[in-house]
Amino acid sequence: MQIESIYHQPYDQYAFSIDDKTYRLRVRTKKEDCSVVELYYGDPFKFQDSVWQTESVLSMHLAFSTELFDYWEVDVSPPNKRMKYLFRLKNGQKSIFYGEGGFSNDFNPHDQSNCFTLAFLHKNNFISPPEWVSKTIWYQIFPDRFASGNNLNNPKNSIPWGSTQPTSSSYFGGDLEGIIQKIDYLKQLGISGIYLTPIFEANSNHKYDTINYFKVDPAFGDEKILKKLIDKCHENNIYVMLDAVFNHTSASFPPFQDALINGKSSAFYEWFHFFRDDNNKQSYETFSFVNEMPKLNTENKEVQKFLLEIGSYWIKEFDIDGWRLDVANEIDHYFWKLFNQKMKEDKKDLFIVGEIWHHAMPWLRGDEFDSVMNYPLMKSLLAYFAYQTIPTLQFQYSINELISQYPLPVIKGLFNVLGSHDTPRILTQCNHNEKRVILLYVFLFTFFGTPCIYYGDEIGLQGGNDPECRSCMVWDESKYNLTIFDSIKKLILIRKKYSVLENDGEFKWYDCGLNPNILMYERRNNQFHFLIIINNSNDQQSIQIPINLNGKRMTNLWNQQQFAAESSSIAIDLSPTDFFILHIEDTDVSQQT
Amino acid sequence: MQIESIYHQPYDQYAFSIDDKTYRLRVRTKKEDCSVVELYYGDPFKFQDSVWQTESVLSMHLAFSTELFDYWEVDVSPPNKRMKYLFRLKNGQKSIFYGEGGFSNDFNPHDQSNCFTLAFLHKNNFISPPEWVSKTIWYQIFPDRFASGNNLNNPKNSIPWGSTQPTSSSYFGGDLEGIIQKIDYLKQLGISGIYLTPIFEANSNHKYDTINYFKVDPAFGDEKILKKLIDKCHENNIYVMLDAVFNHTSASFPPFQDALINGKSSAFYEWFHFFRDDNNKQSYETFSFVNEMPKLNTENKEVQKFLLEIGSYWIKEFDIDGWRLDVANEIDHYFWKLFNQKMKEDKKDLFIVGEIWHHAMPWLRGDEFDSVMNYPLMKSLLAYFAYQTIPTLQFQYSINELISQYPLPVIKGLFNVLGSHDTPRILTQCNHNEKRVILLYVFLFTFFGTPCIYYGDEIGLQGGNDPECRSCMVWDESKYNLTIFDSIKKLILIRKKYSVLENDGEFKWYDCGLNPNILMYERRNNQFHFLIIINNSNDQQSIQIPINLNGKRMTNLWNQQQFAAESSSIAIDLSPTDFFILHIEDTDVSQQT
Repeated sequence: MQIESIYHQPYDQYAFSIDDKTYRLRVRTKKEDCSVVELYYGDPFKFQDSVWQTESVLSMHLAFSTELFDYWEVDVSPPNKRMKYLFRLKNGQKSIFYGEGGFSNDFNPHDQSNCFTLAFLHKNNFISPPEWVSKTIWYQIFPDRFASGNNLNNPKNSIPWGSTQPTSSSYFGGDLEGIIQKIDYLKQLGISGIYLTPIFEANSNHKYDTINYFKVDPAFGDEKILKKLIDKCHENNIYVMLDAVFNHTSASFPPFQDALINGKSSAFYEWFHFFRDDNNKQSYETFSFVNEMPKLNTENKEVQKFLLEIGSYWIKEFDIDGWRLDVANEIDHYFWKLFNQKMKEDKKDLFIVGEIWHHAMPWLRGDEFDSVMNYPLMKSLLAYFAYQTIPTLQFQYSINELISQYPLPVIKGLFNVLGSHDTPRILTQCNHNEKRVILLYVFLFTFFGTPCIYYGDEIGLQGGNDPECRSCMVWDESKYNLTIFDSIKKLILIRKKYSVLENDGEFKWYDCGLNPNILMYERRNNQFHFLIIINNSNDQQSIQIPINLNGKRMTNLWNQQQFAAESSSIAIDLSPTDFFILHIEDTDVSQQT
Repeated sequence: MQIESIYHQPYDQYAFSIDDKTYRLRVRTKKEDCSVVELYYGDPFKFQDSVWQTESVLSMHLAFSTELFDYWEVDVSPPNKRMKYLFRLKNGQKSIFYGEGGFSNDFNPHDQSNCFTLAFLHKNNFISPPEWVSKTIWYQIFPDRFASGNNLNNPKNSIPWGSTQPTSSSYFGGDLEGIIQKIDYLKQLGISGIYLTPIFEANSNHKYDTINYFKVDPAFGDEKILKKLIDKCHENNIYVMLDAVFNHTSASFPPFQDALINGKSSAFYEWFHFFRDDNNKQSYETFSFVNEMPKLNTENKEVQKFLLEIGSYWIKEFDIDGWRLDVANEIDHYFWKLFNQKMKEDKKDLFIVGEIWHHAMPWLRGDEFDSVMNYPLMKSLLAYFAYQTIPTLQFQYSINELISQYPLPVIKGLFNVLGSHDTPRILTQCNHNEKRVILLYVFLFTFFGTPCIYYGDEIGLQGGNDPECRSCMVWDESKYNLTIFDSIKKLILIRKKYSVLENDGEFKWYDCGLNPNILMYERRNNQFHFLIIINNSNDQQSIQIPINLNGKRMTNLWNQQQFAAESSSIAIDLSPTDFFILHIEDTDVSQQT
């Protein structure tokens, strides 16, 4: 047994609560190195004649594997909500105990110090995004480019809607009134949440350089129009998330100008990170190397107060439902904990999403963010479905890797994107192959998480990196890519009809070893059973479904095709990039007998 | 190369700041599996022609090893306080890159997503206990048993001082006035901090069952006497830490009685964890299975407010310097974060120590506790010095294991104990061998952390587990074990004279493979250089010092014996349980030439 590979810790992704009395424990072993893993556990204080009294041993199941590791899981509801525990790992005749104290051949009920400890399961141990999030379909809007509802507020230098490809400095006059006018469109698409990139006063078209955090940019409208937008959205059961740029401001932000001009005598000098550069000239920390974006000193008490006020203001006065936090990883954890406490106090079920492109466990422990933008998922999805640069098994490993990195409740709340204002358009990524775009959405809408469509992706907008990916929304339906548009609409309908395709129940791969071009996975809860089968190849594929479906009725929800299995095995044919969203039901009992 | 063993994460014990511009990075490899480990790093935003520009490569050094793993470290001060990075691991001809994206053969400067990220080094990233803590010698007092200064406040049923061994219910009349009278004693011993087990009104002699959190137990005195004690301590540069029992109360705590009697109609019903047991009888969660100690519901807002008020009250009104938190692991993290924020607001350099017996990283991230009681260290020390059940190499591994589990600044603040009111007396643990007790203190006072003496251990009190370990302090000097007492005094003097023996500088083992009975380690900073050599065997040992000491002058600070090395090698003889605290100095330059 390769003991150096064995890993567990009694917190984060290795031990988390899945309800108010149950822990899910995870232990990692080298791939295919252990055949049995068991959990020995008991109340930390239950002794008889100084011998620790454990409960009956639980068997762990092999939940998933990555390229290097197997991950074993078990759910356990300890009496009195507390436990000490050890794992027993077996490989053939060899068996070893593993606990906080390391490895040993025997279980010693006289020495608890070798055990891991979960001291008490508090309700607030249960990390989970607000309940509504698990059922939301998001739509990201870049306001200058989505819809113009009022030409009077267009910036002076704005150019006619869609007349050219955007540059980094072009304005097209999109605004909040435009969004209001398109609520019906969003509604019909099936959207239940919109995320707006920044709308506060700024110098740029993207507005990631805030000048006034308490004012809607005049090019987008005003506070009254924002209120109307949010109210209308709420009437239509659409949640609204705004973008908070707290890492940096615009260089035109008045406190920065004050500090820049007055130096140390400015009341705002400590709001930023001024320093002397190598030539003894005054300099300051910025976002990236952008002098136009001076970095805020979020360790400063006044800055903290100021930013918390902003956070509260738009919740209390405008009833927003979420904050997306720009460049969230470059701000200190202490501030984010204050932010979380204050915002959740203001609105218990506020959704907080950090922009973090990398692994983000330290922000997702329940006391900072509910979620992060899930770019690692995007990377895997693109490699498999769009570029076809990784085989099916590699793709499954990458998804399992993601699952291994977070507690399941976190996975269920991740903000899943196929792209954003910071990446090329999805149809462009797919080399204009609309079938591959649809496969991406099939996965997105049948997997855990809270999925988001970047405006225009649903009608087939194209373009490379910024600024190309920020072109104007097309409102002429004759120019829609209807294959994509109708597919997304249909997929959203299917996801919304069956919560098991959202975040209810479990997710499980089926081995497609027999045909490496096929991706197959199950979504299942007590009520529903789905099998998703995707042909990711450019060739026709025939497969046998590796489940005994005898006596079951199956419906491919994509085309309503029904079929019944008359033997234990069933064969299906899939055209290139074809897929099945198979709803599996028991046939009527009377028919069975 | 065994890649499954390779581990790093960009947080906690694997990446931490050691000052306001420097990160210490750690990477783990299988023992003796890699020969070279390097760090590739650069500013996340520094590109030229879309090629990421890294800084020059840094070589990592093998910092320490455990039984299974090697740990490599490097200190790095990235320009602009931010970095993305990869490790390159080599073994002979084989070389591999390791980053967040996994393992690869090549370095790809076009894809940063394989890198680990440290997004910005904030000052408050630097987790560190208050500065005074690193120089403090603690003394734990169990007030009923330390000294009686006022017989008038003795409990009615108290028995004459030291007249018998204590039982779990005996009272001896120790009090705060008694402590005041013994400040000179503590001062002469070299103590600079006292930790008092609970002093608030309670039904027991140990007072871990609080009835009134705002009142000093009458058997110990009153608020006025406590104020006098704290003021006198401060006049004598002695810090004072009190014990907060927030996990549970006494069943006599009035809100609990109210809830017990009035059930759901009580305003305090939600302050506890009431539930219906299997027989549908009202029950409640307790500490362990002790009905006398009902568990508080620290998720309740009013309970939080109440406990924070207690925390603040004794700081603001009495100027205490620390809170030791009883059963800290059974209280939720959310509460401890609130507690930390409020207490540090009240007193910036308050010391917060949690009672946690197991690995405690989740509480030591800088936002909950500064420190925990270091029972794992005690376990290692006892096994090696007291019981001699593990060989030297195993002991070193166990200390390295401890070092591997926390950021170094956390290690420097751990509350290191050889025992407490919850463990047998140290002389008893050593089977009455006072020489072994002294070796334990030699290590304790020359290692990282903030060491604590349990009252009476310094004069050789004996006794097994509670209640035996809580016997009355002996004030008749003729009954002191002077060998122990004088040794501890001397060791404290040495530690206080050389901050390098406290928490300045580095700690490094010397290989004692040539003589497995000898423990040898270095403490060193820019100014001082010490070598501690301990013969842990019961036999005479002769060793060669494995350092070139040519031209150095050495003083064994234990006995002021001086000697100069005249050749590159120097041999020393050690009697059984003998030790050297060698202060190594350059000889005068004029003498050298």
